[in-house]
Amino acid sequence: MAGPAPTPLLKDELDIVIPTIRSLDFLEMWRPFFEQYHLIIVQDGDPSKTIKVPQGFDYELYNRNDINRILGPKASCISFKDSACRCFGYMVSKKKYIYTIDDDCFVAKDPSGKEINALEQHINNLLSPATPFFFNTLYDPYREGADFVRGYPFSLREGAPTAVSHGLWLNIPDYDAPTQLVKPRERNTRYVDAVMTIPKGTLFPMCGMNLGFDRELIGPAMYFGLMGDGQPIGRYDDMWAGWCIKVICDHMGWGVKTGLPYIWHSKASNPFVNLKKEYKGIYWQEELIPFFQAVKLPKECTTVQQCYLELSKEVKAKLGKVDDYFIKLADAMVTWIEAWDELNPSGAAAAAAKVSNGPKK
Amino acid sequence: MAGPAPTPLLKDELDIVIPTIRSLDFLEMWRPFFEQYHLIIVQDGDPSKTIKVPQGFDYELYNRNDINRILGPKASCISFKDSACRCFGYMVSKKKYIYTIDDDCFVAKDPSGKEINALEQHINNLLSPATPFFFNTLYDPYREGADFVRGYPFSLREGAPTAVSHGLWLNIPDYDAPTQLVKPRERNTRYVDAVMTIPKGTLFPMCGMNLGFDRELIGPAMYFGLMGDGQPIGRYDDMWAGWCIKVICDHMGWGVKTGLPYIWHSKASNPFVNLKKEYKGIYWQEELIPFFQAVKLPKECTTVQQCYLELSKEVKAKLGKVDDYFIKLADAMVTWIEAWDELNPSGAAAAAAKVSNGPKK
Repeated sequence: MAGPAPTPLLKDELDIVIPTIRSLDFLEMWRPFFEQYHLIIVQDGDPSKTIKVPQGFDYELYNRNDINRILGPKASCISFKDSACRCFGYMVSKKKYIYTIDDDCFVAKDPSGKEINALEQHINNLLSPATPFFFNTLYDPYREGADFVRGYPFSLREGAPTAVSHGLWLNIPDYDAPTQLVKPRERNTRYVDAVMTIPKGTLFPMCGMNLGFDRELIGPAMYFGLMGDGQPIGRYDDMWAGWCIKVICDHMGWGVKTGLPYIWHSKASNPFVNLKKEYKGIYWQEELIPFFQAVKLPKECTTVQQCYLELSKEVKAKLGKVDDYFIKLADAMVTWIEAWDELNPSGAAAAAAKVSNGPKK
Repeated sequence: MAGPAPTPLLKDELDIVIPTIRSLDFLEMWRPFFEQYHLIIVQDGDPSKTIKVPQGFDYELYNRNDINRILGPKASCISFKDSACRCFGYMVSKKKYIYTIDDDCFVAKDPSGKEINALEQHINNLLSPATPFFFNTLYDPYREGADFVRGYPFSLREGAPTAVSHGLWLNIPDYDAPTQLVKPRERNTRYVDAVMTIPKGTLFPMCGMNLGFDRELIGPAMYFGLMGDGQPIGRYDDMWAGWCIKVICDHMGWGVKTGLPYIWHSKASNPFVNLKKEYKGIYWQEELIPFFQAVKLPKECTTVQQCYLELSKEVKAKLGKVDDYFIKLADAMVTWIEAWDELNPSGAAAAAAKVSNGPKK
């Protein structure tokens, strides 16, 4: 147990993506867990400001000027002055896995008082199979000390590839502005010791604060949309991505997990500012959910890119009637895929190859 | 806090149903939690044997002779020498709620060492709404200290009526015979502090060991099938009921919860005996799950009785090809409903009235 730090899991196969407008002092607390990984920092505000990164971290940093330079006119699909810009980091990464975290998230402790290595738990979630087709009442059947219960079909016990691992938050829960306003003092103190697969056909609110995913599997669908500067809404970037990836994972037969790990969310954002950002989203959402619940991707869509382009067409056709914003968003979804394939030519080639070979199993 | 014991929740609106072949000494441990409720004991073996019930409990006891006398020829739908006979107790109850528990289940302790009042937790689960239409990542949003997270549609926050509360087990997990054989020493020691709604469209393995339900809502579908003496399978009674009730709850817009409370399951049943009971079920199940996943109840079915009779027709038509057993089972499902309506004439009348008035909201 002594000696030099052991090489952590997936050290060279995972990037940590952090959107920020401030100094990244929060990394000090994460040093034992993040230090050996590569960071991709995406600056979401004024590019003339300097982001301070604590010494010893291996990172690359992109500001708006970099994004414009790298993507040219296609940079229009990346949000400005909004943490939605983090998805640019997913696009420039060359790794198989991504972990993304907000800069107001600290290390949480489990009930025994031990600091939680959130990244390690996400990796475990991603490397073990998911169970989207049938519910296991004892939660994650692949976990030490657990299994499938009586009545779980044996043909489903191999599980499905896990595409996404959605972690949770102690202290400040991820509430919308109305709930923040109504319950300003509510804190999440309940540590639920479980990881579970969100069943096929079920949508969920995906929060981008503490999120891991298999970039090779689902990366091209992990687009955080048009938010912030010049856009009519905010705080729906991760939600939008979550609905899109869930519909596509369901189509592809991949799993999405939620539960452990927890991070410590240090402070609530301003509910009045949030309300201004959210109010259209709260209203539109009532039409978005039935849309995503009803959307059916054709069998011919055998790559994530194909699924995503098909989804963008549906968005334009069905949600364009709700507001012109969705027409713009549908176009941005197409631009995003074009930019993704440009920066990830091998992935695009692999995707094209998959068209003739059927979906990756 | 001192003085006489306070009246527990739903004291006169809930029956505790216990199937047994032995003396009910286990009730001693449950005395503080069960003593004020009425018990319905169903003897599942030789009626000439005497079941010893600890003093002070208010109970009625039915053996096979009683079942035959009360149901006449319709008694054929109630299993003999199998705990599946417990559903007779659901039928003769006159209460709105049922809690059923196995006689090898003891009081569990929570992580703080406090004894868990399982019944009280089930009642809380049943009296608060469920959320079958969208997944809440912080689990039960109606629980103290929790709420709906950002991105949860406001139109769905009223929730749906809860029909079923499925509790879990510490110590001996509810494994099938193959898993018992492979992992003879595995014990469940993980206390997961959560209650969640199983999403609409998702099937789960319902265990009858520690189960609460709203008898007025879903009682007529809580049939435990033909198991045990003279039948080709066992240990699928609760599973069968679980698949039927889930499909019907989904159709009716009601919720099914799982998670807390835990009971302490004291000893594993014999895996060799279980294997003999289960092996056909393990095999058939691979056809049953796709059947239940695909079955669609017509809109015209607006009562549980109608849904159940429709389901029995589907069972006969589709599963009759798998084995003749399912033809017999489909007939028994019809007999069960006839017997239910005979013993619950007001329920049958209410159900008939609902046909013209639309489903109960």
